[in-house]
Amino acid sequence: MLKIGLLGAGRIGNVHASAITAHPASQLVAVSDVNMEAARKLAASHGAQARTTAEILGDASIDAVLIATSTDTHSDLIEAATKAGKAVLCEKPVDLSLARAQACLKAVAPTGRLVMIGFNRRFDPNFAALKAKADAGQIGKAELLSITSFDPAPPPVAYVAVSGGLFRDMMIHDFDMACWLMGAAPAKVTAVGSSIVDPEIGKAGDVDTAVVTLHFADGRIAVIQNSRRAVYGYDQRIELLGSGGLLSAGNVLENTVSMATAQGVVSAKPEYFFLERYMRAYSAEWSAFVDAVQGKSKPPVTLEDGVLALAVAEAATRSAKTGQTVTLASVLG
Amino acid sequence: MLKIGLLGAGRIGNVHASAITAHPASQLVAVSDVNMEAARKLAASHGAQARTTAEILGDASIDAVLIATSTDTHSDLIEAATKAGKAVLCEKPVDLSLARAQACLKAVAPTGRLVMIGFNRRFDPNFAALKAKADAGQIGKAELLSITSFDPAPPPVAYVAVSGGLFRDMMIHDFDMACWLMGAAPAKVTAVGSSIVDPEIGKAGDVDTAVVTLHFADGRIAVIQNSRRAVYGYDQRIELLGSGGLLSAGNVLENTVSMATAQGVVSAKPEYFFLERYMRAYSAEWSAFVDAVQGKSKPPVTLEDGVLALAVAEAATRSAKTGQTVTLASVLG
Amino acid sequence: MLKIGLLGAGRIGNVHASAITAHPASQLVAVSDVNMEAARKLAASHGAQARTTAEILGDASIDAVLIATSTDTHSDLIEAATKAGKAVLCEKPVDLSLARAQACLKAVAPTGRLVMIGFNRRFDPNFAALKAKADAGQIGKAELLSITSFDPAPPPVAYVAVSGGLFRDMMIHDFDMACWLMGAAPAKVTAVGSSIVDPEIGKAGDVDTAVVTLHFADGRIAVIQNSRRAVYGYDQRIELLGSGGLLSAGNVLENTVSMATAQGVVSAKPEYFFLERYMRAYSAEWSAFVDAVQGKSKPPVTLEDGVLALAVAEAATRSAKTGQTVTLASVLG
Amino acid sequence: MLKIGLLGAGRIGNVHASAITAHPASQLVAVSDVNMEAARKLAASHGAQARTTAEILGDASIDAVLIATSTDTHSDLIEAATKAGKAVLCEKPVDLSLARAQACLKAVAPTGRLVMIGFNRRFDPNFAALKAKADAGQIGKAELLSITSFDPAPPPVAYVAVSGGLFRDMMIHDFDMACWLMGAAPAKVTAVGSSIVDPEIGKAGDVDTAVVTLHFADGRIAVIQNSRRAVYGYDQRIELLGSGGLLSAGNVLENTVSMATAQGVVSAKPEYFFLERYMRAYSAEWSAFVDAVQGKSKPPVTLEDGVLALAVAEAATRSAKTGQTVTLASVLG
Repeated sequence: MLKIGLLGAGRIGNVHASAITAHPASQLVAVSDVNMEAARKLAASHGAQARTTAEILGDASIDAVLIATSTDTHSDLIEAATKAGKAVLCEKPVDLSLARAQACLKAVAPTGRLVMIGFNRRFDPNFAALKAKADAGQIGKAELLSITSFDPAPPPVAYVAVSGGLFRDMMIHDFDMACWLMGAAPAKVTAVGSSIVDPEIGKAGDVDTAVVTLHFADGRIAVIQNSRRAVYGYDQRIELLGSGGLLSAGNVLENTVSMATAQGVVSAKPEYFFLERYMRAYSAEWSAFVDAVQGKSKPPVTLEDGVLALAVAEAATRSAKTGQTVTLASVLG
Repeated sequence: MLKIGLLGAGRIGNVHASAITAHPASQLVAVSDVNMEAARKLAASHGAQARTTAEILGDASIDAVLIATSTDTHSDLIEAATKAGKAVLCEKPVDLSLARAQACLKAVAPTGRLVMIGFNRRFDPNFAALKAKADAGQIGKAELLSITSFDPAPPPVAYVAVSGGLFRDMMIHDFDMACWLMGAAPAKVTAVGSSIVDPEIGKAGDVDTAVVTLHFADGRIAVIQNSRRAVYGYDQRIELLGSGGLLSAGNVLENTVSMATAQGVVSAKPEYFFLERYMRAYSAEWSAFVDAVQGKSKPPVTLEDGVLALAVAEAATRSAKTGQTVTLASVLG
Repeated sequence: MLKIGLLGAGRIGNVHASAITAHPASQLVAVSDVNMEAARKLAASHGAQARTTAEILGDASIDAVLIATSTDTHSDLIEAATKAGKAVLCEKPVDLSLARAQACLKAVAPTGRLVMIGFNRRFDPNFAALKAKADAGQIGKAELLSITSFDPAPPPVAYVAVSGGLFRDMMIHDFDMACWLMGAAPAKVTAVGSSIVDPEIGKAGDVDTAVVTLHFADGRIAVIQNSRRAVYGYDQRIELLGSGGLLSAGNVLENTVSMATAQGVVSAKPEYFFLERYMRAYSAEWSAFVDAVQGKSKPPVTLEDGVLALAVAEAATRSAKTGQTVTLASVLG
Repeated sequence: MLKIGLLGAGRIGNVHASAITAHPASQLVAVSDVNMEAARKLAASHGAQARTTAEILGDASIDAVLIATSTDTHSDLIEAATKAGKAVLCEKPVDLSLARAQACLKAVAPTGRLVMIGFNRRFDPNFAALKAKADAGQIGKAELLSITSFDPAPPPVAYVAVSGGLFRDMMIHDFDMACWLMGAAPAKVTAVGSSIVDPEIGKAGDVDTAVVTLHFADGRIAVIQNSRRAVYGYDQRIELLGSGGLLSAGNVLENTVSMATAQGVVSAKPEYFFLERYMRAYSAEWSAFVDAVQGKSKPPVTLEDGVLALAVAEAATRSAKTGQTVTLASVLG
C-alpha cells in the first residue's frame, strides 16, 4: 500500500483525493494547503491528517506526493519532493516560465525520482482508444491532426491575468495531446489569437479564441482550436486523418435521450466541464501513476513532456504576437 | 449511518456491496451466503463480517438487508426480514410463482416495513431522463411505447431450466419499465415467442426470442422485443411516441471513437452487458433506497410493483402458449 | 422506347409521370382520369395526350400502363389492361377485398402479361441496402424483424372511412416489406390496435395506432408498429436482428445541420412524408419496371406479392377484432 | 424561356447541361467545345446544337452562357460574353492570376451584364441551412469558423502542375465559403502546407495537405483544413462557433444503414465526390442564376466574390511559402 501525501486541497485536490482513496494500492495519509482549514476538512473526509508541506516531505513513510497547488509553486515543490525521495505526480503546467521548468528538469534528473505530469486528457478512455487505433496502424500513416477544445465559459479576468495566458494555461493540454498523438515535437508553430469572447480578457493582455498550427519536421500538420466559451458545454474532440482513414473521438453526452418534435430533434449536450468529462480520466491517471511507482510500467507522462508542452506554448505566444511562424528550436534556445 | 446486512455474495451481491460501501450514509456490516467462503471473502474486502442469515436478521443493530440470493428464497427472506423489523431491498423477481408473491405481499403489509424491489433499469440515467421528459409533458400524451431489450448471449441451458422462462426471468424488467413509463398496469397481454437462437432452450420448454404487446385500458399500447442474443452487446433502448413527439433513449457505447476508412465508418459497440451498462444505475438504486429508509422520499419501486411485473409475465407466458390475448384480470384471479 | 399510358392524374400519378419522362427508355404518351381537366393538365406538361382509359387500352402502340387510380378500380383495370396486352404497374393495394384480388390473380394468369405492384419502399435506397446486406449473410440468419412506420399526420376521416382500414391501407406496405425481407409469408398474425390519435377514426370503425406480430413457420418473428401521427415527420425505420448482428435503416433527415446551444443539441427532422422520403424510390421502381418489361430482369414485385400483403392485412384485421392469433391459412381459405 | 449556350462539354459541362434542361424556365440550345465531337454528343442528348463559341456569342437569340471551359479561358470568355450582351455563369476560379481577374472585373463593369461565379457549395442545402440559421442569429455572434474539406483522392500530378496550386484550385471553394459565411473579407491570412500525401505533388511545387487561418478585422477567426486524400470519401464539413452556440453541417452519407456486429457498428461512408455530394447544389445554383437573370433576385455570387476568393488564395500561397502572415491589403495591391 503506497502512502500518499497530497499538497493542495482545492477543487482539483479533492478530485485527486477521491482517486487516491478509491485505488486499492494507495492510501491518502496527509494533506497540506496554505488554507489549513481546507486541508483539515479534506483530510478528515479521507481518514488522513492535515500537515504542513514540510512535514509531509520530511516523513520517510510517505512514498509519493501529488502536487495540486498553485502553478507558481510547482517547480519548487517538484524539486523539493524529489530531493526528499518522493515520487511525484504534479498538476500541469510545470511552470509558466519555460526557463524555470527547464531548470527544474535539470535539478530533478540526478535524484532519479519518478516525476509524472498530470495531463489528464491522455487518460480519457475515448482519446486513449483513438491513440491505440492510430498506434496499431488502423488508419495508416497519420498526416493531419485536428483538436477542438472549447471551455464552457471563460474564467474570471482576475484568473486570466495570472494564468500565463491562454496558450500556457488552456491550450497547453492540447499541445501535449498533439505531441503525444503525433509521437513527436513540432518543428514550427504558427498562432493566431483574438479577444472576442470577452473584451476584458483582451485588456488583460490575453486572447480567448485562438487557432494554432503545428508543423512537424516530416511534413505532418496539427491544428488546434480553442475558445474560452461554448455555451453548450465542454467541447473536446479530436480528429486524425491518415493515409488509410480518419479517426474521430467525439464528446461524451449527458445522456442518450433524444426528443423529436415538430421543432426538430433535440439530444443531450456534452458533459458540462472537466470535472464531469474527465472524472474517469483522473482515476485512470492515478492508476497509471501507481503502476509506474510500483515499477509495473513506465510513467506515461514525463517531466520532459511537461517541459515540451510549455515550450510549444511559449512558441505559440510569440507567434500570436508577431504574426510570424516560430521554430521550436528558437524557443528552446 | 445505516448498518446493512447483505444476503447473497454472488456476482450481483458483489455489485451491491460496492454501492453500499461507496454511499456516505450506509455501511456494510455483515454478509451471508450458502457458500460461507464466498461470504467471508466479500465481507473481508469491505471490512464487514461473514455471518449466517439468521444472525443477521436477529441482530437489532442492523437497519436493513439487501437480498441478493437465489430467486426461490426471495419471498421467504422478504417475510422473515420484515418480520425482524428490517427495511428490505430485494433483487427481482419477487418469486417465480405469482401466488407466492401475492402471499408475500399480504404477509408484509402488517409489518409496515419498507420493501423495495431491485428493478435497476429505472435508475439508469438515460431511462430516468426519458421518464422525466415524458412526465413533464414534453411529448404530450404518450400513446405507443417500444422497448428493445437484447442480451449479448444466452445463459446456460441449465439456468434456463430453472429460470421460470424468458417472460419471468428476462422480460420482467421490461414489464416493470412499461408499467412505470406508462404509469399504469396493462389490461391485456399478447405474446409471441420462439426458440430460434438455441434449440436447446426450446427443448427446455422456453423461448429465446419474443415479442409482447401490452394493451392499456385507455387504448395506449406498449410493445417489447426480447432476444437472448445480440452478438454486438447489450441492446437496451426505449422509444415513446406521444401526441407531441417521440422520446428515444439509446444505448451507451463503449467509447465515442469512430473510424472512417474505405470499408465504411466504424463506431463502438454498446456496453457489453448489465454490469457495464447499469453500474451507475445500481449506485442510484442504492441511493434511492437509503433515501427511502431515511424517510427523505418514498420508495420508488414497491413490492406491489414487483408483484405487478410478475403478473404481466404470467399473462405473457399464458398468451405465448395459447395464441390468445390474456387479460391481466384473469391472471390476478 | 416504351410507350406508356398513365391511368390516374392525381398526386401519385404526377409523381409517376415525372419518373416515366425522366427515364431514357420510356415515354409518357397518354393520360386518363375521371377528371379530364386533370388529365389534360398533366398530359400537357409532359408532351402527352389526354385520352380515355378505353382509348389507351385500345391503342396497340402503347406498351404498358401505370395504374394510379382509386383503389376500387385496380382489379378491374389490371384485368382489362392485361387482356389488352399491356404490361402493368399498379399502385398498391390490388384491392380491398382479398377474394377480388385473388380472382384478379386468377384472371391475369392466362394472359401471361407482366403485372408489377407498386410497393415503392422496396426501392428506397436505404431499405434496399439493408436487404442486400441481409441477403449477403452479413448478419447471419435473420431472427427478429422490427418495422417502425409512422405517418406525420392522420388522413381526413372521410378518407379513413373508405380506406379499408389501417391494416389494408397503411400497414400493407409494412406487410410487404416484412414478407420481402424475411423471404417468406408468415404462418400466423397477431394484431393489437387502438384509436387513440383521433377518436373520430375510432368512430369510423378504424384504428390509428397498431402493433402487429408476424410469426413465421420456422420460428422467426416480425413486429410492425404503425401510428397515423408523428408530429416530427415521416418515421420509416427497419431493424433486423440476426445470429451475427443487427442491421438498421434509419430515417432520411432534411439536412445534416445540428445546432448546439445551452438548451441542447438540435438536429433536423426526418423528411416530412412519402413524396419527400420516397422520391428516389419512385424513380428506382419505375426503372425496375422498365427493365422487367424489356426482359432484362424479373419483376421485383409481383401480383402474387400484392395478394399476399392483402391476405396478411386481412388476418391482422381479424386478429385485432378478436384478440386471437389468426393463421394465414385460415384467411387464404 | 431563357435560351442558354454552354461553353465546354467536359464532365462539369455535362452536369450543368442536365440542370439547364431540367429547369422549367431554361433551355439548352447550343454547346461548344474545343473537342467538337464532345460538343456534338452532349448537344444531341439535350436536343441542342453543337456550334462554335463565336457562333454562340454572336447569336442574339441566346440569353446567357454557362462557361465550363478550362480555367485559362475564363476571363477572356467572361469579357467576350458580357460584351456580346450575355448573362454569364462561369465556373470557378475566375482566373489563376489575380491581376488578370481584377482586369476582367474592370472590363465587365461597364457592360452592366450579370456575371455569377459557380461556387456551388453555397447552394448545398446543408450549408445553406447552416448559413440561414447563422444569419437568423440563432447562435448569436459568430466567432470561430472551421471548414474541413478533403478530396477522396489526389488528382493526377499533370493536373496539379497546371492547377495553380492547392490554394487557388481546391481551397478557393473554402475561401469563398469563409467570406460568405462570415460576411466579410479577411484582413490577414496565415497558411501552412505540406506535400505528404504524394511526394510527386511536392516535386511539382505544390502541397497536398494544408491549414489556413483567416483573421478578420473584428477579431473573428476562420480555419480551413484541406487534404487531397480521404480514402473514405469526400469530407465536407463546416462548424461555426458563436456567442450562443455551435452550428455544424455534416457529411451526406451514402445511405442510412448501420450494421452492428461483434466487430463494431459500421455505417455508410460520405458520398464519394463532388458529383454525388453536390448534385443538388448544381441544380439550386442554376435555379438561382435563372432567377437573377429574370430579375427575381440578386445574383448570390458575384464576380467580385470570385476575385476576392482568388485574392485570399494568393495571400495563402505567399504565406505558406514565407511562414509569415500576409495581409489581404498587400495582395490586393
